[in-house]
Amino acid sequence: MDAMMMDAMSADMMSMEGMSTDMSAMMAAAQACMDACAACEQACTVCSTQMMDCAPSCMNCADMCNTMMRAMMRMQGMTPASMMAMLDACIAMCQTCMDMCMMHADSSPVCKMCADSCQACMDACMAMREALAAG
Amino acid sequence: MDAMMMDAMSADMMSMEGMSTDMSAMMAAAQACMDACAACEQACTVCSTQMMDCAPSCMNCADMCNTMMRAMMRMQGMTPASMMAMLDACIAMCQTCMDMCMMHADSSPVCKMCADSCQACMDACMAMREALAAG
Amino acid sequence: MDAMMMDAMSADMMSMEGMSTDMSAMMAAAQACMDACAACEQACTVCSTQMMDCAPSCMNCADMCNTMMRAMMRMQGMTPASMMAMLDACIAMCQTCMDMCMMHADSSPVCKMCADSCQACMDACMAMREALAAG
Amino acid sequence: MDAMMMDAMSADMMSMEGMSTDMSAMMAAAQACMDACAACEQACTVCSTQMMDCAPSCMNCADMCNTMMRAMMRMQGMTPASMMAMLDACIAMCQTCMDMCMMHADSSPVCKMCADSCQACMDACMAMREALAAG
Repeated sequence: MDAMMMDAMSADMMSMEGMSTDMSAMMAAAQACMDACAACEQACTVCSTQMMDCAPSCMNCADMCNTMMRAMMRMQGMTPASMMAMLDACIAMCQTCMDMCMMHADSSPVCKMCADSCQACMDACMAMREALAAG
Repeated sequence: MDAMMMDAMSADMMSMEGMSTDMSAMMAAAQACMDACAACEQACTVCSTQMMDCAPSCMNCADMCNTMMRAMMRMQGMTPASMMAMLDACIAMCQTCMDMCMMHADSSPVCKMCADSCQACMDACMAMREALAAG
Repeated sequence: MDAMMMDAMSADMMSMEGMSTDMSAMMAAAQACMDACAACEQACTVCSTQMMDCAPSCMNCADMCNTMMRAMMRMQGMTPASMMAMLDACIAMCQTCMDMCMMHADSSPVCKMCADSCQACMDACMAMREALAAG
Repeated sequence: MDAMMMDAMSADMMSMEGMSTDMSAMMAAAQACMDACAACEQACTVCSTQMMDCAPSCMNCADMCNTMMRAMMRMQGMTPASMMAMLDACIAMCQTCMDMCMMHADSSPVCKMCADSCQACMDACMAMREALAAG
């Protein structure tokens, strides 16, 4: 995510109803969250090709991470309430996928990588949640 | 959604941890929900091309409806908790999109159609939520 | 796909550069193609959860069918050349998925259903290709 | 895209029917192509929120770039022929989007950024095409 793209988005975020002042903290959280979603979608997509029993949760998580990332890039189409609900759903999908992949993380390095990406994405979504709640 | 596909999915749904007995009510709610998500994705996709200010919320809603539909088709990768969070997020995105489209529903028949599809999708997600809570 | 949505799209299709007269044949082909793409995305999504070796091709085909359907709904963002290239790619992905699923169509009714949906989607894309070439 | 993910994918790519020897050149092209698709999806998603007439082509391009990236991550579900058709479609969509965005690149820095991302993605897809043809 480059600087110009973030500039284009911060203007949108400012205009989100109910938003207040500290946009720099918000934008840092948003940027980290979008990057973590993008990385998690990729890890889950690769993991889902292994034909292990985590595959359906990996595919669900990949789709949700992509949808979450796009929604953060289209902030004009969000409200604080819908953003919170989306973050909660993304966190829940990452948790479900991570739980599945951790069952065979010892034997599958790809599952370990996927579980780590899910954890990082959950953390970034929770940080965004806190930035929004404070915003 | 044809009968064979529903049969393939109901076996998966039976195996979802925490699921109990009345699968026929659950499957009827799931089928209605997937169909409403598919219709809402289409309506939102068309509405988003009008270059009106609802476009970002329509695109967000289209993506979420598709992700919701797919997650219901991959029930093995869901838990009751993650399904609830996804339904809540889908309901929130439909609400946001509907609110935006209703602002110009009088002048734009496409926005009216989109708002109606969002309402129908919300209703179907709420019915699925109730079926899950009872299940 | 309901009638109002098709009306909204036919105006767009009329404006696609290089388009000529017989819009009714074109719109009928487009409607059939979008419906076949939607059905194929659903069949492939369900089939991909079976943890058989067709899963990666099913997921690829599901994504391409969704992208194809959406592109036909956003005809303002297409040219005849890009539409042709998209139809060719969709046909290729359906062919690849069908070939994989047919290997176990005898033992898996879901794979048989998926292969049938791929065949129907290929046929609809080819008919759309012909309508465009004649357009 | 990190190193472990590429290792997981190169094994799959080796197994793609019709693939021959120089996997390191192929994998370098694939990695560059997936990264360019991911970046282009993001740029197009942001650009599509500006409510300019490039929006439909940006949305189409975003979807195709995501589908292309995922297909390259699920190489087991591809054949050389379907990969070629997908690359051609992705190139065509990037070209269409770039042509639209270049019309207002002087007045809109976001459109300029989007057009640049489309050009980079086209270049990466063409390089992948050449690596495949040589492979």
